[in-house]
Amino acid sequence: MGVNRSTVGSLVSELSDRGFVCERAPASQMVPGRPSPVVEPREDGPTVLAIEIATDTLGAAVVGLGGSIASRTGVDRARAWRTPAETLDELVALVGPMIADCGRSESICAVGISVPGLVRRRDGFVHIAPNLGWRDVPLAELVQDRLGLVVPVLSGNDADLATLAEHTRGAGVGLSDFICLWGEAGVGAGIVAGGRQLSGAAGYAGEVGHLPVNPDGRECHCGARGCWETEVGEEALLRHVRSRAADSGRVALEYLLADADRGDAEALGAIAEVGRWLGVGLVGLVNIFNPSGIAMGGLYGRLYPYVRDAVTTAIAERAIRASRGLVTVTPAALGADSALLGAAELAFAPSIADPTRVPRPARPLRAGPSGTVVGGHTAEQYQGGGAAAQRSA
Amino acid sequence: MGVNRSTVGSLVSELSDRGFVCERAPASQMVPGRPSPVVEPREDGPTVLAIEIATDTLGAAVVGLGGSIASRTGVDRARAWRTPAETLDELVALVGPMIADCGRSESICAVGISVPGLVRRRDGFVHIAPNLGWRDVPLAELVQDRLGLVVPVLSGNDADLATLAEHTRGAGVGLSDFICLWGEAGVGAGIVAGGRQLSGAAGYAGEVGHLPVNPDGRECHCGARGCWETEVGEEALLRHVRSRAADSGRVALEYLLADADRGDAEALGAIAEVGRWLGVGLVGLVNIFNPSGIAMGGLYGRLYPYVRDAVTTAIAERAIRASRGLVTVTPAALGADSALLGAAELAFAPSIADPTRVPRPARPLRAGPSGTVVGGHTAEQYQGGGAAAQRSA
Repeated sequence: MGVNRSTVGSLVSELSDRGFVCERAPASQMVPGRPSPVVEPREDGPTVLAIEIATDTLGAAVVGLGGSIASRTGVDRARAWRTPAETLDELVALVGPMIADCGRSESICAVGISVPGLVRRRDGFVHIAPNLGWRDVPLAELVQDRLGLVVPVLSGNDADLATLAEHTRGAGVGLSDFICLWGEAGVGAGIVAGGRQLSGAAGYAGEVGHLPVNPDGRECHCGARGCWETEVGEEALLRHVRSRAADSGRVALEYLLADADRGDAEALGAIAEVGRWLGVGLVGLVNIFNPSGIAMGGLYGRLYPYVRDAVTTAIAERAIRASRGLVTVTPAALGADSALLGAAELAFAPSIADPTRVPRPARPLRAGPSGTVVGGHTAEQYQGGGAAAQRSA
Repeated sequence: MGVNRSTVGSLVSELSDRGFVCERAPASQMVPGRPSPVVEPREDGPTVLAIEIATDTLGAAVVGLGGSIASRTGVDRARAWRTPAETLDELVALVGPMIADCGRSESICAVGISVPGLVRRRDGFVHIAPNLGWRDVPLAELVQDRLGLVVPVLSGNDADLATLAEHTRGAGVGLSDFICLWGEAGVGAGIVAGGRQLSGAAGYAGEVGHLPVNPDGRECHCGARGCWETEVGEEALLRHVRSRAADSGRVALEYLLADADRGDAEALGAIAEVGRWLGVGLVGLVNIFNPSGIAMGGLYGRLYPYVRDAVTTAIAERAIRASRGLVTVTPAALGADSALLGAAELAFAPSIADPTRVPRPARPLRAGPSGTVVGGHTAEQYQGGGAAAQRSA
């Protein structure tokens, strides 16, 4: 790194003081000279609270450096529109006991929230989350207030966060040009180009579900016609099969996948039709981005074994010749946890960029006004942290 | 910039020694203290040779810092496939006299070439240029050898280079998320995201002409069906009108535009149909990239006055709500020169990133083996410059 021994020493001290790392003596000394201590992340070091708000589930975890999950919780929800306030009530009920049980509340230095919607980068404001029925929700701010948090709260789009996690420690590790296609009720993608994740002018980049692929296609909830999502989204998948359950969404999807597993022709036909359209859109993404890797996550991670051949054949036969040989399609590596772990990465990002943001002395547990207890620091220690800091960033 | 007066002085000296800038006394002194000299680009400073190989034209210019054209030349060519060797012969005939006339050959520190094809970033290798009939052409290397150049030669895709120029000094100045749609015989785009231009894993990003927009559409030369280019490319435009000229391409296009100018219904109908499909694809690009600006260049700069309403209406009505209000569509600002000036920017880029690459003493004119005279430096001064340097970059 081009810095001398004493500089390394003082940098490590700063990290060590804030509980990020610990130093231990080396196991054996193979070279002459003064032995260098081994620096490693502390298992009891700083953590973040990661929250995943999905259409059919709520999940949360306390996550340490390196994506290690210290504690987790989650609940299924029947698919229905809920107000942000209702969801916040559910979150408080879910998160409070988990944090109390895990006994590490004072280590939480930030909160990250994954949400299936368009999230403005600068302040975590949710412009629209169609499958939650939300529009114009200052989510990061609401969560900070409702959970009584004094630590920074950041929020991001689920596909973007899944991509962040897959790029950091999943299917996209080491790839400078990488796409993670993400299906939940809706369809999106996170895009890494030249080593950096795209956000667009305001944070709304990656809405690949609204690529126009079929001029004679169905109307999309976005107001356009024939969007990719209308051909490959969950609703498109399920409309090809007779409804087996009064419940839509997740439950119907599980029935469909179980049917496919045992070779049911209707289920396999539905998946094949979606696979065909997946190929169409992925060819377009390969042509636009010349990626070296595409990961399929969420719904598409589940479908991957069935659509792999259709998708790889489409790319091999129809993507432009120069780019098609350079790309590999894989399932997302972190399974169902991509978006949740991405929320953790989002929350850690400011502290990793500047560890001196994390206050040195972790103070005793402090109760927030609503009774949920998170974080051992005062707001002043963060110098206007939280949603306010995100807004001014 | 956080550097002190003496550091600025020595940095300016380095630039000044290499002829990039000159210092002059300030016109008036409004503040007390030692007057600071004014530093400005030298009009007789370093230049680059920019070359534009297009389907129907060849162009070249000697370009100084800031995009100032010191001398230029160009020739129309009947549309036909030519071997790279034939094009190189034409280039030698075109470029030699221009350089001799302009009297600044010793100032040329690099060569940039724009080509309508897929160009590998690391060495300027042309993978395919469908409208030239080229495949697998080591263009930068061939030009360096054939023109007897000892200065570095770089080449790039025309849409990418047009975008580079528009972003540097045209319609995209100051925009961190910007798309330049570029139409020649084919269709492509350059994409700036987060302030940096996308290249993809190997340099082939931006092939928006091969977005699949119409599953029932025509076969595309790329091997797929219903690519955007089959609906908005020059060929798509011209197939809507009766052929007026035995000559295809550029000449037919001029007839069409002249017809449109005087209100001919057939011509206007053809342009309207292309405009409709332009809207379809641009909606997709807005949804993927959340750009703040889109410039239309080349063919689309010519069509812009006719398609502006269709395109802006499509985006306003069908792009996702969060992104559509943030984007402005304009014609490219540099007119027909975008790609040529982009080739100049490409050529200047290494010298601007590291001015110490440019040898200090400009030596007398030196004739290359093929008689064309370019550059006042020896290959050794560039320490393995040219295509070889690009390959190793």
